[in-house]
Amino acid sequence: MSDTWLNSLETDTPQEGYELAITLSRRGVKYTQPDVDVLKKLRPEYANSADGLTAASHVIATNFQTVAAANNYWRK
Amino acid sequence: MSDTWLNSLETDTPQEGYELAITLSRRGVKYTQPDVDVLKKLRPEYANSADGLTAASHVIATNFQTVAAANNYWRK
Amino acid sequence: MSDTWLNSLETDTPQEGYELAITLSRRGVKYTQPDVDVLKKLRPEYANSADGLTAASHVIATNFQTVAAANNYWRK
Amino acid sequence: MSDTWLNSLETDTPQEGYELAITLSRRGVKYTQPDVDVLKKLRPEYANSADGLTAASHVIATNFQTVAAANNYWRK
Amino acid sequence: MSDTWLNSLETDTPQEGYELAITLSRRGVKYTQPDVDVLKKLRPEYANSADGLTAASHVIATNFQTVAAANNYWRK
Amino acid sequence: MSDTWLNSLETDTPQEGYELAITLSRRGVKYTQPDVDVLKKLRPEYANSADGLTAASHVIATNFQTVAAANNYWRK
Repeated sequence: MSDTWLNSLETDTPQEGYELAITLSRRGVKYTQPDVDVLKKLRPEYANSADGLTAASHVIATNFQTVAAANNYWRK
Repeated sequence: MSDTWLNSLETDTPQEGYELAITLSRRGVKYTQPDVDVLKKLRPEYANSADGLTAASHVIATNFQTVAAANNYWRK
Repeated sequence: MSDTWLNSLETDTPQEGYELAITLSRRGVKYTQPDVDVLKKLRPEYANSADGLTAASHVIATNFQTVAAANNYWRK
Repeated sequence: MSDTWLNSLETDTPQEGYELAITLSRRGVKYTQPDVDVLKKLRPEYANSADGLTAASHVIATNFQTVAAANNYWRK
Repeated sequence: MSDTWLNSLETDTPQEGYELAITLSRRGVKYTQPDVDVLKKLRPEYANSADGLTAASHVIATNFQTVAAANNYWRK
Repeated sequence: MSDTWLNSLETDTPQEGYELAITLSRRGVKYTQPDVDVLKKLRPEYANSADGLTAASHVIATNFQTVAAANNYWRK
């Protein structure tokens, strides 16, 4: 991919950090399957499956560990 | 999502931290499938499946690692 | 859940820490499916399945990482 | 379980640490299904399944992270 | 494998770090199945499967934790 | 197993560290199923399965986290 989509892991708030974790998780899918049409076709397959949604949340949780550590857990 | 739901990873007790980990896990599902009606329909699929419940507990455990680290493990 | 079940992540021994990790893993299931009758009915489904038991042990391992770090690995 | 099986996470060598990680992984299974006869019956189910063996190795890897950190990676 | 493909975990930007995590994830597959023809044949199997893509993103997330820590999260 | 196969987690380069992570992952399988003939018979089952290869890469990624931390990420 030639576009720039990730300049920093630092965010202002934990919620923005969580949303960055979602972006990271989606990018992992997109690097593996760059064809947007295929991705759209597959969406109902996991977004309507309990197991698929739990698995998606697990990937987000794994990326959120990274983002949270990068931000020193937004401790004040 | 436009609402604010995560201001801090810090909690008073480990139990509140565990419950925050549950919130994080559910949000991961909800960001992926925002349609509340679909989510309600899927609930029996994992809440009545041993594998689904174990997978849900795994996601919570992953998020709890993050919350616990953020709170320095509530050490006294 | 209104009861208090988690006051501290600190335990005297690694074995008690491992058992706390089991408690955390079970709570993750119970928060997701609070109906005790459903849980009892599901028990044979994973307790008699090799894959289910391995998955349960994986969740415990993840929670044990948290508990062990909280106790500074019970180093002497 | 009333027996004492885990007094310390410290081992002399990384290999002993890896073997402790295996013990931890097996205990997670045994706490969940204490009936030794059931466990024996299930053994062929995962020990003859490629997926089952990979999953077992994943649990060991997770526990090995804990044991290795506890031993400060046996650095000299 | 006799070629040199990994000299350092350090990258200039988080995005390059994420791309290194993808390389690491693919290498894990290639070490296990070195036959390029088999790999090509299997590609549609996961690249057109929602579960397969989520699992691929999970592996990348796990490797990204390592790369991000190695780079001290590219903190400025 | 009576042989000595793991004396240290330290390696000269990240690539050797990654290869050690592969060794650790395979040992987890071998400790669980020591019968080499069974292992050989199972090899096509995961080496020709996209899901099996992704799962293998996930275990390697988990062990690589440990090896990389042990080597302080080979930082110069």
